[in-house]
Amino acid sequence: MTETYVGVDVGGTKVLAVAIDPDGGVVATASRPMPGREVPDAEVERALAGAVLEAAGGALPTAVGVAAAGLVDAVGERVRFAAHLPWRDAPVRRAMADRLGTPVFLDNDANCAAYGELVAGVARDVESAVVITIGTGIGGALIIGGRLYRGSQGMAGEFGHMQVVPDGLRCECGLRGCWEQYCSGRALERVMRVAVGRHLDGREVSALARQGNAVARQAIASIGTWLGVGAAGLVSAFDPELVIVGGGVSADGELLLEPARAALLDSLQGTDRRVVPPLVPTGLGREAGAVGAALLARDGLRAGGRP
Amino acid sequence: MTETYVGVDVGGTKVLAVAIDPDGGVVATASRPMPGREVPDAEVERALAGAVLEAAGGALPTAVGVAAAGLVDAVGERVRFAAHLPWRDAPVRRAMADRLGTPVFLDNDANCAAYGELVAGVARDVESAVVITIGTGIGGALIIGGRLYRGSQGMAGEFGHMQVVPDGLRCECGLRGCWEQYCSGRALERVMRVAVGRHLDGREVSALARQGNAVARQAIASIGTWLGVGAAGLVSAFDPELVIVGGGVSADGELLLEPARAALLDSLQGTDRRVVPPLVPTGLGREAGAVGAALLARDGLRAGGRP
Repeated sequence: MTETYVGVDVGGTKVLAVAIDPDGGVVATASRPMPGREVPDAEVERALAGAVLEAAGGALPTAVGVAAAGLVDAVGERVRFAAHLPWRDAPVRRAMADRLGTPVFLDNDANCAAYGELVAGVARDVESAVVITIGTGIGGALIIGGRLYRGSQGMAGEFGHMQVVPDGLRCECGLRGCWEQYCSGRALERVMRVAVGRHLDGREVSALARQGNAVARQAIASIGTWLGVGAAGLVSAFDPELVIVGGGVSADGELLLEPARAALLDSLQGTDRRVVPPLVPTGLGREAGAVGAALLARDGLRAGGRP
Repeated sequence: MTETYVGVDVGGTKVLAVAIDPDGGVVATASRPMPGREVPDAEVERALAGAVLEAAGGALPTAVGVAAAGLVDAVGERVRFAAHLPWRDAPVRRAMADRLGTPVFLDNDANCAAYGELVAGVARDVESAVVITIGTGIGGALIIGGRLYRGSQGMAGEFGHMQVVPDGLRCECGLRGCWEQYCSGRALERVMRVAVGRHLDGREVSALARQGNAVARQAIASIGTWLGVGAAGLVSAFDPELVIVGGGVSADGELLLEPARAALLDSLQGTDRRVVPPLVPTGLGREAGAVGAALLARDGLRAGGRP
């Protein structure tokens, strides 16, 4: 029987499942709309299971990885909190394992994306990297010693809520001046709204920018500049070989990354005495979280626990 | 013959050497004024050697650790840059080994202090910690997986130059708004100068604060608040078990740490869903760097390389 591993990325609006073969090649994908955050947990879990089985072509996958846009506990059992999902201290790993009848591994979506980069993306040959995923907000992960570093409570990489502006913009988390208020899909929409006086979503801003619209380009550059400023802080603290940028907003490519690199260089101390780490786009694109979750399931099954 | 290990902490104003026995007990200390930063490298090295031999009671130490207030390369051979010392890409480890005729190990002073905490201080039983040393500026180190984490170029822990205020105060490093402009001995002196209209050094501010002077206490509290804000960012990024505060300014004790803990709690996302790591003072006091360097030499000799 062929082994198939499925990773499923659970975001605020969509569930994306990707099936891979044992070598990591993508075999199939499937998606579902997210049922929302006001529904019972079981409804979300049903949507996940549906996408997983569809991606696996109706057969039972050898193992499944769940990438959750939220805080996952240190042992990979529970989703403690997820702003856009109903889960509150929910035993998601066990619930999905019981529902599917196959081994399930659970991790934070940015950790899954980082694991994907480590195994099959741009971090294959590095010992250390900072992974910054820019979607609605900022997600993050750390690679140390050639492995995912999850921190003492599984909460490392919560870069989005580092304060970058004292008494700055109010954040959904209750604090002020959080990095993701200046560098995220939401921040991009806010900058555009201020500039043009009406709401445009991220895709509309991207499309305008690709057509050469100067206002849209400046808005993306502003997000990129804040990306570089925050990345400089992480580079100072952590001295990684590589800074990897993923998430939906990273699809704006060089329009985002070029100003980010300039700001990284301008905001980093002692650039004449150190190698400034390359700031590069994700190697796995929008599917990084799901592919990473599938690889996490594959390797977790082989190792007898999350790698 | 008794084994003796000497650690020597090279700061901007003073060279402090501490001799320890093989169990880490402090046997003797010796100090010298720093010859300055405009002198030949050899003059600093002569001062180091003098302090080392005095601390060792005239005998040759089994091994020597050098803790340098500056950037040390990834392999512990050279001091790349030190704002208050003459060394510029200087082969300090070999120069000292040649001069003393005994094995020498070299590391950044904050790394040495962190190693001291790990082996003999407050980090003995933890897997992960952020170490923040507040002196003239901010030094820093990371403990990950129960070991020092030095980063890809040996430059991890340069927390002092993370930007905390956009377009903020100009820093000696050439950037603006660096954390150490708001949280350091220099920052404390600046806050006091603004408040009372004349220069007081850190010791004078401490003495006034201990006598109950409200202005001095407020100045120390301001440094403490910025300590907590910055610590919150590092906790978000690294999720450590412990935050350890050392350096000269940490001698202000609870006057500094109490506002720091309050600001850490106020500036950290999701404190209802996580354990907030304790923010504690160094267990080794002002000698942490020198004692840590001595322990690094002891364990480096046993392991055949820096631990």
